[in-house]
Amino acid sequence: MTRPNLDAFLTQCQQITGPAGVLSAEADMASYLRDWTGQYQGSAIAVLRPRSTDEVAQLVRLCVEAGIAVVPQGGRTGLAGGGVPLDGRSVVLSLERMNAIRTVDTDARTMTLEAGVILETAQNAALEQGLVFPLTFGAKGSCTIGGALATNAGGSNVVRYGTTRELCVGIEAVMPDGSVISALHGLRKDNTGYDLRHLLIGAEGTLGIITAAVFKLAPAPKVRVAGFLALEDLAHAPSLLNRMQDRTGGAVEAFEYMPKPMIAAIQRAFPDVRAPLDTLPETGIFFEVASSRDADAAEAEGGGSRLEEDVLGLLEALMEEGALPDAMIAQTEQQRLDLWHLRESALEGVMHNGPAYFTDISLPLNKIAPFVAEMDQAVAEMGFATLTVGHLGDGNLHYTLSAAEGQDWESLPLAKAKALIFDRLQAAGGSFSAEHGIGQSKLDLMRQLKTPAQLEAMRAVKRALDPENLMNPAKLIPMDQS
Amino acid sequence: MTRPNLDAFLTQCQQITGPAGVLSAEADMASYLRDWTGQYQGSAIAVLRPRSTDEVAQLVRLCVEAGIAVVPQGGRTGLAGGGVPLDGRSVVLSLERMNAIRTVDTDARTMTLEAGVILETAQNAALEQGLVFPLTFGAKGSCTIGGALATNAGGSNVVRYGTTRELCVGIEAVMPDGSVISALHGLRKDNTGYDLRHLLIGAEGTLGIITAAVFKLAPAPKVRVAGFLALEDLAHAPSLLNRMQDRTGGAVEAFEYMPKPMIAAIQRAFPDVRAPLDTLPETGIFFEVASSRDADAAEAEGGGSRLEEDVLGLLEALMEEGALPDAMIAQTEQQRLDLWHLRESALEGVMHNGPAYFTDISLPLNKIAPFVAEMDQAVAEMGFATLTVGHLGDGNLHYTLSAAEGQDWESLPLAKAKALIFDRLQAAGGSFSAEHGIGQSKLDLMRQLKTPAQLEAMRAVKRALDPENLMNPAKLIPMDQS
Repeated sequence: MTRPNLDAFLTQCQQITGPAGVLSAEADMASYLRDWTGQYQGSAIAVLRPRSTDEVAQLVRLCVEAGIAVVPQGGRTGLAGGGVPLDGRSVVLSLERMNAIRTVDTDARTMTLEAGVILETAQNAALEQGLVFPLTFGAKGSCTIGGALATNAGGSNVVRYGTTRELCVGIEAVMPDGSVISALHGLRKDNTGYDLRHLLIGAEGTLGIITAAVFKLAPAPKVRVAGFLALEDLAHAPSLLNRMQDRTGGAVEAFEYMPKPMIAAIQRAFPDVRAPLDTLPETGIFFEVASSRDADAAEAEGGGSRLEEDVLGLLEALMEEGALPDAMIAQTEQQRLDLWHLRESALEGVMHNGPAYFTDISLPLNKIAPFVAEMDQAVAEMGFATLTVGHLGDGNLHYTLSAAEGQDWESLPLAKAKALIFDRLQAAGGSFSAEHGIGQSKLDLMRQLKTPAQLEAMRAVKRALDPENLMNPAKLIPMDQS
Repeated sequence: MTRPNLDAFLTQCQQITGPAGVLSAEADMASYLRDWTGQYQGSAIAVLRPRSTDEVAQLVRLCVEAGIAVVPQGGRTGLAGGGVPLDGRSVVLSLERMNAIRTVDTDARTMTLEAGVILETAQNAALEQGLVFPLTFGAKGSCTIGGALATNAGGSNVVRYGTTRELCVGIEAVMPDGSVISALHGLRKDNTGYDLRHLLIGAEGTLGIITAAVFKLAPAPKVRVAGFLALEDLAHAPSLLNRMQDRTGGAVEAFEYMPKPMIAAIQRAFPDVRAPLDTLPETGIFFEVASSRDADAAEAEGGGSRLEEDVLGLLEALMEEGALPDAMIAQTEQQRLDLWHLRESALEGVMHNGPAYFTDISLPLNKIAPFVAEMDQAVAEMGFATLTVGHLGDGNLHYTLSAAEGQDWESLPLAKAKALIFDRLQAAGGSFSAEHGIGQSKLDLMRQLKTPAQLEAMRAVKRALDPENLMNPAKLIPMDQS
């Protein structure tokens, strides 16, 4: 684009957004052009900051006319580079100024949020009404609702409440032609043609820009019981989870795999973090159950809550069966928060540990134990150690390779280990991307592991809705046939 | 198609399916060419009955080559004509011989079913393992899993377990080009590109043919509590539902609106059906809660279950507040089944009552009461009576017009009443099609009530995946621009 054309384009953008809505100086744009991990860095013509859905639509039409690509952006907390522009030929469209909580409806138990609302802000607004905005994960203080929708984000309590997709009951979006899809209805049932909501959620902005959405809210728990379990065998985990669900009426909010090396790594990074059990178990599980029922919060004979009594009964039965060598239940709120702190320190524990290769895989629940056993042994023989943490209740593992003691990371056969992991994962019917998104980081895996039929259907949809390939191009779907 | 060409085509089909897989004699085809209501009747070149996904794929490729449209068909229990062929230029592709239960996995709590499995068969197979296949509705004895997926069917316990879409965690489908999408993984989290599963579910066979799917199973309840409530005001229903959910930990399995005229119509059709309360309430609610918890099934002080005690406590509080003039809780299993029988007789009650206009609408929960109040009065002034039954917990009403006493149906202003209903529904953010599908019956409403942006996005997807418009043409999406 020539300088006069560029200036004219930026002037037109400013006419739409007002002067504060267009950033084009290098210093102003810098923070919008890289992600928090520092792994992805790009450049852009400008950063556009619309204040309304109508402004987004006008900007998209303007960009389409000028043939300029649009990279929608939320809180830049992604791990896959989806919101970072690739080169200087696109604009970043940040939703940060569309951050209104449009409505909270306590009867229908829904909340309508603009894309730029920070997750924690939404959580707090729901709590003020005695309700829970269920989605939660480490980046809650800076990630946005729009980013969560774009990546169909998961987190620690998907086992109870579902992924972002499953919480969303209405959407508003600007399509690649600048038209607006307005379906902020909050309906539990609506079968009127193809489900455009589900097409746009998880599409990482490649089919349009989600500007607002309606979410289901849940009742706030009146009682929570958290604990840490030492399992005899990871293969027992699915049955333990099922029994915990049955016993509590589906109240399991977290069921997280934390094996010994992971906890040890966290303790090396944060020496003040307390070990949950005196002897760290090879197969540790952090769990929490929570209930909105008065009856569950009521005091039981033993002095704890009835919910705690129910959980204790299960743990005692498991111990008698020999499936549970050790277990603890948090006796104070501080102990409960300590367990959460341990869990939420996992990513930093891995980062502190040294060079690593992260994954974000998922498997059918009954195939996790054999997969982990086979892989742990195979990669150990190659000189790797593993630092795994996982949302076990959803079959989602962040299976991570690091260098075994005394090994030099750079000399380890990472390509060979990756090939083995994804080969076995594929054979077990697993997914190479469970909750973090594809972005720029996993296009190679999309090419390798999705079938031609799947890729061709996705490409056809992309070409149909975004024929000029201007919406977040070169993300999510590899458009080349190779 | 000329006779010799036709014969050659049918011979090729037979080579794929075996002789029993192709029906072309009029008498053999008859039952496949009409729906159970008798409202829809079509004709077809032949009825194809493949036995495997590979046979479906081969047949689709053969039809595409010959330019013959394909109408996928399940149990023909739909209410919208989606599975009935329109004219003699297409083939019916019945999935009835693909009726294997491929796997039941009790650890992962999933079940893999072929499209032709009858819903009740799936329910029974799950029950044998102590689990529940949650989807259920009146047609369960003859509808198929494939039909339920094609229409994203709902039913009576969506409030607890979600719609078909929400229960499905994996899919296998033959696309319009004859390629096969095979994703029967059963994963709780899988973000690898556009969600083709959600695109195919509810697409009524217009984007491909679902041949198998994986479903989530739920634990079998150990205790159920059903009852019937007389509400002071329908506007109290959302808050009552919320309180019942909170009190039972989300255990509400049915929350059904059954006003007085509806029950009266059922009693006229089935004089032996017992009234749930001595005085029929204007605003009746049938509910059931169920729990898998031992603690809920345990005997409480009053002699009933603890779950029943919890519900009783809520009903007493509501009575004290004056919100609940009357209520009953089933004291025996027979009483509970009687309540279900009453609910499941609603459709026949309406049919027995005389000519009627059915709807399948949904509204945000907090907009139902004002909508019903306004409509009941407005249509009464036009000479209509209303016979409404609804899955109130999902905001889904089957709001039905019949002739008021002494009125002649044929002389009533039905077009005017419909226009008013859909106008007000639209204004309230409601949907004109909640769970029965669009099929042939609601194409006019799709044209009228979806926005140009929505229709154009749907048409683009349809054209992209089915460029020859051979998959169940002229259903679901109005492809013409008018």
